[in-house]
Amino acid sequence: MTSTSERPLILVSNDDGIEAAGILSLAAALDPIGDVIVAAPLQEMSAVGHAITMREPVRARPWPFRGPSGQITAHAISGTPADCVKLALNKLVPRQPDIVVSGINHGPNTAVNVIYSGTVSAATEAAILGIPAIAFSYCRWGGGDFEASGRIARQIVQHVLANTMPPGILLNVNIPDVPFDDLEGIMITRQAQARWEEEFAERVDPFDRPYYWLSGTFVNLDEGTNTDLWAVDNNWVSVTPIQHDLTAYRAMEVLQDWDWSESSEK
Amino acid sequence: MTSTSERPLILVSNDDGIEAAGILSLAAALDPIGDVIVAAPLQEMSAVGHAITMREPVRARPWPFRGPSGQITAHAISGTPADCVKLALNKLVPRQPDIVVSGINHGPNTAVNVIYSGTVSAATEAAILGIPAIAFSYCRWGGGDFEASGRIARQIVQHVLANTMPPGILLNVNIPDVPFDDLEGIMITRQAQARWEEEFAERVDPFDRPYYWLSGTFVNLDEGTNTDLWAVDNNWVSVTPIQHDLTAYRAMEVLQDWDWSESSEK
Repeated sequence: MTSTSERPLILVSNDDGIEAAGILSLAAALDPIGDVIVAAPLQEMSAVGHAITMREPVRARPWPFRGPSGQITAHAISGTPADCVKLALNKLVPRQPDIVVSGINHGPNTAVNVIYSGTVSAATEAAILGIPAIAFSYCRWGGGDFEASGRIARQIVQHVLANTMPPGILLNVNIPDVPFDDLEGIMITRQAQARWEEEFAERVDPFDRPYYWLSGTFVNLDEGTNTDLWAVDNNWVSVTPIQHDLTAYRAMEVLQDWDWSESSEK
Repeated sequence: MTSTSERPLILVSNDDGIEAAGILSLAAALDPIGDVIVAAPLQEMSAVGHAITMREPVRARPWPFRGPSGQITAHAISGTPADCVKLALNKLVPRQPDIVVSGINHGPNTAVNVIYSGTVSAATEAAILGIPAIAFSYCRWGGGDFEASGRIARQIVQHVLANTMPPGILLNVNIPDVPFDDLEGIMITRQAQARWEEEFAERVDPFDRPYYWLSGTFVNLDEGTNTDLWAVDNNWVSVTPIQHDLTAYRAMEVLQDWDWSESSEK
């Protein structure tokens, strides 16, 4: 909710890097409804999880970022997505943004993949500070058309600005790879239970030294029809509220019932 | 719970690197109660969050790792803590471990810091696969004596092996920096609400280019007496069950009540 009559201030970040098509689409889609500032990694930063840079300095430089109706203020940053949002909120914005958005990611961030996602970690940094935050992902790994996902992003940002976000959460939005008119609508979802059946290819380098390369197959273990995976597979836009408090509250009671006395020490 | 009469297989990792004092203490403390295999980063990997290495290969090499009663099988790995556990579970262990432990971290992993923690991410990789997993941290940033925390780690591993972990969770254990006899006991806790008041030092490099360096002050916003921060401040060993399903279930209903129709599009 904007407290004044001025246009909302919208901070935009991502993990695919400042030159990715997805962040250009997101900034362009939001430019008509607010004042947009981009702060994004200079380099591609996928699968960095919630990494932050502490042992080294971080650099920021102005970046020529052209939206459909002219220049958009933008900063290219030498760090991770979390660094970008931290630095932007501290040093690069004129006032606290009304909303922080991240994406549009090239590829889905569903199920267990959320914990590896730089796109989500950028939004999490804002949520921790109580700023409404949304991570957007387009369920296609390369290429494609960001037109529909840009429109969806603008709609969802407007809904969030018009409502009050529950405290301590952010929205993780996944948009199916179909034309806008084929989308069924917006579905509030939970993270599907899924996992990677991982494989490490074992190879030998030109100097006869072994190395391993991670690959794998994604396996959905969840038959629910209210999950992020079900939604995008059925042409719904998936909106999952996610939290940064990782406490498993329901497990606390189970653990309190264990006998924690030292007697088991041999 | 071990299903056979053989000694439990215990995989040990960390984020401070294979040469850290904390992982040596952990492996040594567990050596008497099981068959220990160490798989840890070659380099210090703090604050990498849940990063995984996909664009580059990962290398593993045998490492001379000496416990109090002789050699412990160990592998030094070129990747992140999550990489170490993934690779070890796929390629380096003779069978699925009975438990995966991470640490002992040099410094606490409490409150919001959990999301940046490589120590926790190593344990999370095992929890996703349904393997009991524990992250151990010693609440002291440098130096100190790992004797008490090693004893505590051994006790907690024995409790976990003797019980059945609730599904989908891992234990995040923080051990206060006091002698063993001054510890009050074990407390099941939740993550405290807290945040960093961040600052970026602005400096200029020898080539007259500006750079930023992250620092900040940690602020506990939580007055609860069942939090991880309260426990360690009061000489209790904090055991927090944490989950990798980030869904904010309670927020789902709130969001379902929003008007998500397109009418708000300008």
